[in-house]
Amino acid sequence: MNNLLSHKQIAAALDHADPLKHFRSRFFNTSDVIYLDGNSLGLLPLATSARLRQVVEYQWGNRLIRAWNEHWLQTPKRIAEKIARLIGAQADEVFVGDSTSINLFKIAYGVLKLQEGRTVILSDDLNFPSDFYVLQGLINSYFHHHDLKILASQDGVNAPEEEMLQAIDGTTALVCLSHVAFKSAYMYDMANINAKARSAGAKVIWDLSHAVGSVPLTLNDWGAEFAVGCTYKYLNGGPGAPAFLYVRKDLQSQIESAIWAWFGHASPFSFEQQYRPRKDIWKFSAGTPPVLSMAAIEPGLDLLLEAGLDSLRKKSLSLTTLFRQAFAEQLKPLGFEWASPTAENQRGSHVSIRHPEGYRICKAMISPENDALPIIPDFRSPDIIRLGFAPLFNKHCEVIEASERIAQIVESETYLRFDATLDAVT
Amino acid sequence: MNNLLSHKQIAAALDHADPLKHFRSRFFNTSDVIYLDGNSLGLLPLATSARLRQVVEYQWGNRLIRAWNEHWLQTPKRIAEKIARLIGAQADEVFVGDSTSINLFKIAYGVLKLQEGRTVILSDDLNFPSDFYVLQGLINSYFHHHDLKILASQDGVNAPEEEMLQAIDGTTALVCLSHVAFKSAYMYDMANINAKARSAGAKVIWDLSHAVGSVPLTLNDWGAEFAVGCTYKYLNGGPGAPAFLYVRKDLQSQIESAIWAWFGHASPFSFEQQYRPRKDIWKFSAGTPPVLSMAAIEPGLDLLLEAGLDSLRKKSLSLTTLFRQAFAEQLKPLGFEWASPTAENQRGSHVSIRHPEGYRICKAMISPENDALPIIPDFRSPDIIRLGFAPLFNKHCEVIEASERIAQIVESETYLRFDATLDAVT
Repeated sequence: MNNLLSHKQIAAALDHADPLKHFRSRFFNTSDVIYLDGNSLGLLPLATSARLRQVVEYQWGNRLIRAWNEHWLQTPKRIAEKIARLIGAQADEVFVGDSTSINLFKIAYGVLKLQEGRTVILSDDLNFPSDFYVLQGLINSYFHHHDLKILASQDGVNAPEEEMLQAIDGTTALVCLSHVAFKSAYMYDMANINAKARSAGAKVIWDLSHAVGSVPLTLNDWGAEFAVGCTYKYLNGGPGAPAFLYVRKDLQSQIESAIWAWFGHASPFSFEQQYRPRKDIWKFSAGTPPVLSMAAIEPGLDLLLEAGLDSLRKKSLSLTTLFRQAFAEQLKPLGFEWASPTAENQRGSHVSIRHPEGYRICKAMISPENDALPIIPDFRSPDIIRLGFAPLFNKHCEVIEASERIAQIVESETYLRFDATLDAVT
Repeated sequence: MNNLLSHKQIAAALDHADPLKHFRSRFFNTSDVIYLDGNSLGLLPLATSARLRQVVEYQWGNRLIRAWNEHWLQTPKRIAEKIARLIGAQADEVFVGDSTSINLFKIAYGVLKLQEGRTVILSDDLNFPSDFYVLQGLINSYFHHHDLKILASQDGVNAPEEEMLQAIDGTTALVCLSHVAFKSAYMYDMANINAKARSAGAKVIWDLSHAVGSVPLTLNDWGAEFAVGCTYKYLNGGPGAPAFLYVRKDLQSQIESAIWAWFGHASPFSFEQQYRPRKDIWKFSAGTPPVLSMAAIEPGLDLLLEAGLDSLRKKSLSLTTLFRQAFAEQLKPLGFEWASPTAENQRGSHVSIRHPEGYRICKAMISPENDALPIIPDFRSPDIIRLGFAPLFNKHCEVIEASERIAQIVESETYLRFDATLDAVT
C-alpha cells in the first residue's frame, strides 16, 4: 500500500483502469446496494430479464407446446456447451439440469459402483455439507459397507491437502472435495489431487460451486474425471437455477446414473416400456427440466465468456488483495481474524473474516443507519462474515467502503441495535 | 343431440351458459390458436407473467439474497398447501419440488424398503413410461430381487383393472399406476385399488400427472397413501415446472427418501456434518429448488381453486361429451377410432382418437391453409391424436371446430402436404 495515497484513492485508480468495468452496467441494481454476496446468489443480468420475458410471454405464452421443438429441447445443450468452455471441458462432457446435490447423487452412485471392492470415501470438513449428506444417503441405502472419512482442517481455513494426498490409497473408492471451499475459499490444487488419485486407482468428484466463474478451470488439462457445480453463484444464473455435472468423455460409458427417467432415455418420445439409456452425457438427465429457471442461466454465461476467466481472475485477485490490505490496517486491530488462506493461489474469489459479533455486524452492514447504502455480505455460523468479490460487477471502491463500514460498525457499536437471533438463510 | 340444432348452435349455447367462461380471459393467447393440449403444457395465466416479472426484477434483481428469507423459503410451502387442496390432502402432506420422476424415485425407494420381503411391483401398460424407468432403475440398483410386472391392457385404452385387483396379493410390495392414463385418459377407481392393496398389505403410488386439476381428487377419502404428480399440465404451472409428491401424514415417519441433501436437513443452515432429516413432508426435499420455475406455479393454482374442481369436472364432461357426439357423426365415418374409455366415470379430461394418418392429420391441424386458426392437439405414437379439453379455458365451440376441421383435413386429404417424419416432441 502506498502510504501517500488513501485506500479510496487507490481503489478509484484501480477502478478507473479496470478493463472489466463496463460489465457492471449490464446488471440490475448496482447503485442501490454494495453487493458482496455474488458467491451465494449472483446479480440479475439485464439480458436475463429480457430473455425471461421472451421465454415466458413468447415461447410459453404464444408458441406453447410448439416451443419444445422450437426452443426448449436445445436450451440445456447450448447452456452446457457454454459451461464446458468455462471449466475447460469438451462440449459433450457437461450436462445441465436438476440440482447440485442430485447431480452428485447420480454420479457418486455410478462411481461407487464402478469402484466395487473399494469402500473408503474421502472428503474434508471444508466441503459443502450437502455433499456429505448425499454420500451418507448413498451409504445408508446402497453402499452399506462404505465409510465416509471427513478429514479435519486444522483451523477451518486451510484444507488438509497433504493429509488428503497421503490418505488416498488402494482402499479409496472416491474422493469428494470442493475445489474452492464455501466458507474459507481455500482452493485445492486440483491437478495434484487428481494425479495422486489416478496413481492409486481412486476417483475424484469435484464440487465446483464456489469455483466456477470465479477462477480459471481447466478440468481436462488437470486430469479431472468427474465434477458437479451450481450456476446461481458466480454464474449469475438466478435463484436455485439448475446445476451441472461433468463426466470425462471416456468415462461416460463406464458409469450409470443412479436415476433412470425419460429424459435420459435414448428415445423418450417413443414411450417404450424398457429403459434404454442414452450413450452420451445426457444419460444423466432424469425428469423434465424446469425451463424457466434453465433459460435464465444463459445470459449470465455469455457475460462471463465475453469477459474471459483470466481477466476475471486477475481482477478478483486485485479485489481480494486490496481487501487484505485494508483488513490489516482497519479490521485486524478491532479483533477481526482473517479466515481465508493468505496465499493467492490457494484462494477463490471470496474472503471470510471472523469476529465474535459477526452476525450482528452483518445485520448492521445490511441495514445501515441514515442514508448509507446497504452492504450485503453473508454470515456463516458461528462467527464468519463472508465477503464475495465478484469480479464481473464489484468495484475496488466497494471493497474499501465495506472495510471502512465494518470498522465503523464495530467502533461505534451500532451492531448492538440488532437481535442476535439467526434468520433462516444467513 | 338435438337434430334441429347444429353442433355449432349447441356449442354456442353451452358456452353462453358456461359458469366458468370468464376464466378464459385470464390466460394469454386464447384468440390466436385453438389449444387442445392443456393436458401436455397448460396456457400461460396473465397473472403468472406479472408474478414472474415481480420475482425476477423485484425479488431477484432488487432484493437479491434477502429474498430467500423474505419470499423464497415460503413459496414452496404455500404452493404445496394449494396443491393439497386440489387433491383432497392435508396441507402438511404435500411436497413440491424436483421432477415427477425424481419424486417417484424418492418415495418408491422408501416404500420398497418399508415393504422388505415383498418383491413384486405391479403396474400396467397405460402408465407413463418414465414411471417404469424409475422403477427399473431402482431394481437395477437397490432391489435386485424385485420384479416389475406390467399388466397389459386389452386394447391400449381400458386399464386391466380387474386383473390388477386380482394380482395384488401378499407378494405385492408396490402398485404404481397413473390415476388418469396419459394416452387413453382411462381413470382408475382409486379407492377400489387402495382398498384391495390395504387388505393385501401392498402400497400404492399414484401418478396424478394427468388427473390433477382436471378431475376432483380426494386422496384422503380414497385411502391414498402415496402419490406424485406434475404441475405443467392442467395446473398451468409452466414448462417443466417443479412436481409434487404426497405422503399421508402417518406414513411420513415410516419411509425415508432415497436422496439426502441439504434442503431435507432439519437445520440446513447449521451446516452440520451429519445428515439429520426433517420429520415432516419436507424431508423429501433435496437440493436448492429452482425458484423461478417454482414461483410460476402459484397463479395457475389460484385460478383452479377459484373455479373449483366440481365445476371444472362438470364442464370437462360437457366438453368431452360434445366431442364424442361430434366424433360419432363426423369422424367415425372417416375411419377414426375412439381410443378412450366410453364411460364418463372412467375418463379424465382428454380424449384420444386413432387414425392411420394421425401424425400428418395433427400436422395439418397445427398448420392450416389460408387464415384458419391453428388447432393444437398432440400426437402419441403410433396413430393417436390426443385432444386435451381443459375446462378452465377451452370452449365448446373449439371442440366442434376441432371435429369439423379434422373431418375436412381427411376429406380434402390436405394432410398429404405434410412429411411423416416425427418431430422430437410430438
